[in-house]
Amino acid sequence: MKRDATPVGRTQTPAPEAPVADTGRRNFLRRSAAAVGAVGAAGLVGGKAFPAGAATMAEANPENLPPNVPEWNKYLGYSVDWQPYGLPSEYEKDVVRRSVEWLTATREASINFTPIQDMHGFVTPNGVCFERHHGGAAIVNPVDFRLMINGLVDKPLVFTLQDLMRMPSVSRFYFLECAANSGMEWRGAQLNGVQFTHGMIHNVQYTGVPLRTVLEEAGVKPNGKWIMAEGGDSAGMNRSIPMEKALDDCMLAWAMNGEALRPGNGYPLRLVVPGWEGNMWVKWIRRIEVGDKPWFAREETSKYTDLMPNGKARLFTWEMDPKSVITSPSPEKPVLHKGLNQLRGLAWSGRGKVKRVDVSLDGGRNWQEAQLDQPVLDKSMVMFRMPFEYTGQELLMQSRCIDEHGVVQPTMQALQKVRGTHSVYHNNSIQTWLVNKNGEVENVRLG
Amino acid sequence: MKRDATPVGRTQTPAPEAPVADTGRRNFLRRSAAAVGAVGAAGLVGGKAFPAGAATMAEANPENLPPNVPEWNKYLGYSVDWQPYGLPSEYEKDVVRRSVEWLTATREASINFTPIQDMHGFVTPNGVCFERHHGGAAIVNPVDFRLMINGLVDKPLVFTLQDLMRMPSVSRFYFLECAANSGMEWRGAQLNGVQFTHGMIHNVQYTGVPLRTVLEEAGVKPNGKWIMAEGGDSAGMNRSIPMEKALDDCMLAWAMNGEALRPGNGYPLRLVVPGWEGNMWVKWIRRIEVGDKPWFAREETSKYTDLMPNGKARLFTWEMDPKSVITSPSPEKPVLHKGLNQLRGLAWSGRGKVKRVDVSLDGGRNWQEAQLDQPVLDKSMVMFRMPFEYTGQELLMQSRCIDEHGVVQPTMQALQKVRGTHSVYHNNSIQTWLVNKNGEVENVRLG
Repeated sequence: MKRDATPVGRTQTPAPEAPVADTGRRNFLRRSAAAVGAVGAAGLVGGKAFPAGAATMAEANPENLPPNVPEWNKYLGYSVDWQPYGLPSEYEKDVVRRSVEWLTATREASINFTPIQDMHGFVTPNGVCFERHHGGAAIVNPVDFRLMINGLVDKPLVFTLQDLMRMPSVSRFYFLECAANSGMEWRGAQLNGVQFTHGMIHNVQYTGVPLRTVLEEAGVKPNGKWIMAEGGDSAGMNRSIPMEKALDDCMLAWAMNGEALRPGNGYPLRLVVPGWEGNMWVKWIRRIEVGDKPWFAREETSKYTDLMPNGKARLFTWEMDPKSVITSPSPEKPVLHKGLNQLRGLAWSGRGKVKRVDVSLDGGRNWQEAQLDQPVLDKSMVMFRMPFEYTGQELLMQSRCIDEHGVVQPTMQALQKVRGTHSVYHNNSIQTWLVNKNGEVENVRLG
Repeated sequence: MKRDATPVGRTQTPAPEAPVADTGRRNFLRRSAAAVGAVGAAGLVGGKAFPAGAATMAEANPENLPPNVPEWNKYLGYSVDWQPYGLPSEYEKDVVRRSVEWLTATREASINFTPIQDMHGFVTPNGVCFERHHGGAAIVNPVDFRLMINGLVDKPLVFTLQDLMRMPSVSRFYFLECAANSGMEWRGAQLNGVQFTHGMIHNVQYTGVPLRTVLEEAGVKPNGKWIMAEGGDSAGMNRSIPMEKALDDCMLAWAMNGEALRPGNGYPLRLVVPGWEGNMWVKWIRRIEVGDKPWFAREETSKYTDLMPNGKARLFTWEMDPKSVITSPSPEKPVLHKGLNQLRGLAWSGRGKVKRVDVSLDGGRNWQEAQLDQPVLDKSMVMFRMPFEYTGQELLMQSRCIDEHGVVQPTMQALQKVRGTHSVYHNNSIQTWLVNKNGEVENVRLG
């Protein structure tokens, strides 16, 4: 069963392919020159028609090319006052977050998805970082903002934002993945778009104060073994976190990618819980209570638990296991060109660094190691890339992440053997894309 | 002589400081608690007045605090459809690029400045990356975009954007600094704002194809020793680059911080020349010609050369030397709090990695090593941080960058001894901020 999500909008239109000449030279254009010819065949280059079928236009003598002086070369451009805060080109208007109407009962307690098919590199730009709200995005005035630390502490505290910013801060790249990312795929290939199957994730440079510093300031009592983080939104969203994690690498962050958090991502302050499910990264955080046991809050009992085959539920399944996905080709990024192409994708592990990403073009029979972009950082996304040949044959593309602890991203079959089919959360299984003979890409389930 | 730039707009309003109680405990709040009390003294917290002069409000029993339920906790927030492409909070509306009216004859051949005083971490968000245009920002249609490689090559080539994207790509963080950054400071402390003294810089993750790959595709002839990169804007801005650099680490980049380049930063393609002056990073690049000698283009003869004391001009001064600046405190970021504060700043070197940043609070007499945020990357900015005490005394704050080759950021006196006072470009000297007794910060020249 396959169900289309809301329309993805205008994506790249595949250009017709002109015949390909093999010049016999070790090069990329040997095959890719066709696309230039194709554009020429389809229209005009620089105001003059270019001979159709000239597969080797890229190798033509440029002296013979049309004058090729487009509008933007002729007229004065925009002044430096044009956009005090800049925006993407109008030609990139389809690179936006999207949501799925039928997924949730309301638009406020809902989610939108990062357009990861259009991401280059491991930074997710702030404008398209996915959002999951439980009571809508709160608009918080930073001057009136307060954070309270109470419960089993020597000295309950209330902080202003400026108080926190005067404490020693750090910046770190971390991925944030919703536990429900790929959740709709447990019961078959459901959504035909990588934005929807894997887009509940982002990766940014967070800046803030280590939570440990703030807790030490308040003085945690010996029986303080858990914290409860509570959001300042209308849902008052709250979660329990064991003290060990709170004192390890958690942060109270006010910035993402160098600037203040965006309203939908918790402005002015959110909890950062590296490697753990996104729901715990409490936004608009207003209070941290220290206790001796977990709170069993709504979002860690009725939700964000995993119903197992025996009818019991896994509770406190925090860590996000190694995972990866090919983002291009993908349903939104068909293969437009016969010959040599590049695939790219994203990999991550909540347990630490990504060690290796393997790619298969034949549904998991043969694997090749992909190239990892540097630097590879702890609990941060990494972009992987690999060249591949496309001659019009069917391909079954997969990627598989192996982290520094040797943990391997599983197949869905292997995952279901352990977890059954009732779950919504923590699906880190291998994704398969079918590239068909027209270069279109489809979400399929193998076996 | 001191001249104010265009108004910086609303900056943080210093809150009145309440008396400080020293609780004797090793903590940050010992001194910083005052600010919370100050806000309480100045108004309401959560709807109820908080006792004025309660310097240790942060240590008060939170059970006694007012209910503290602000509006955003009471009402449903925005839906996930609110901003398909997200924007900063309305409270951050002053974190924008700014320009200086008197600096250039036109607004199109001009520059705007990155608000580095508000940057956290080493990523510059795309919306505020500074822009220098020579004929205005070109708006290029990526479908009609072409890049030509010609001159001393075996096979002249014309690429579409898709052709380039099918070649093997990489992502790398690099700083881009205009050669004229801090140029107005050669003849004394001129501009009272770090956005204006040091804001002609940004640092993003660029993604593209190595220029080497493209040149190898065309086949550089043995006498091809230089390239000329030509922009697709109305200025047709062009620069000569030695082949050695072109084959080393230059890139043709289509993405910054994960998404397509912004129009003002060269969309859809710009040259990346790591560590070298920004003028060479040709935007909207349309042509690369291979030659046997430099072109002596306008922007490398009449401009972007350094007039020396003997009347001759240094030519081809490409590399950006080690440099750093404290971004907070700075004229835009006064010291609002008596007690323990944190300073932060940015450091970079066009020669490689930053090895160390020293900070002085007394005008260069004593130096302490600042903390460097990880990872420290090649030819990328690094954020440094250091705690400091402020008791209302005057401070003369400086920072000094030392790169991995041991090259040290010089004083202005040392720099002027070699270069004289006629130059506009390549001022990498140490910046001094005077913090006065009111916590205000001023741009001053020592000695």
